Amino acid sequence: MPFGRWAAVSHPELDEITVDDVLHALADPTRRAIVRLLQAEGDRPCGTFGLPVAASTLSHHFRALRKGGIIRQYDEGRQRMNTLRTDELDKKFPGLVAAVLAAGN
Amino acid sequence: MPFGRWAAVSHPELDEITVDDVLHALADPTRRAIVRLLQAEGDRPCGTFGLPVAASTLSHHFRALRKGGIIRQYDEGRQRMNTLRTDELDKKFPGLVAAVLAAGN
Repeated sequence: MPFGRWAAVSHPELDEITVDDVLHALADPTRRAIVRLLQAEGDRPCGTFGLPVAASTLSHHFRALRKGGIIRQYDEGRQRMNTLRTDELDKKFPGLVAAVLAAGN
Repeated sequence: MPFGRWAAVSHPELDEITVDDVLHALADPTRRAIVRLLQAEGDRPCGTFGLPVAASTLSHHFRALRKGGIIRQYDEGRQRMNTLRTDELDKKFPGLVAAVLAAGN
């Protein structure tokens, strides 16, 4: 478990993450859009995704992705950053995230 | 839309089924067990899956699979039969169901 920069929010350990968690986390087009943008452009702060949803809704989506083991969040200055855990997840569920993202928006 | 033997319950058309529907339907180990048994042994009636859950719970799971486009149900005599729609789904979401089932129980 990393210390320091992950301390602000809790993240499930890889061995705690179930298939169900991953599927629930990805069963939403806004959340898949977040994952795609992180894949394409790397880590970025919550406020910079340019998605047409309210801040509170977006906050809910980031939380769902975090609880589902899809992203890690860490604080950098005043910004909450997001980074993908898909390399980690691929060890446990090879190809799952890619298959879901390939299935459509 | 087939007539007759599908008439007892409603099923979404293929073009109505979303990625989210499929993921929600498969985000449960009992529902994945139902799909696996249908894949392995073909169509079978609701009461013959041998799963350790209450009849009302099982009924909920069949409904979730039906609404998510994973199975079709039809009545045969007094039995409600279940058949997979995964060939159909694969045309719309190639490899998605297989990837989810491969990810774990």
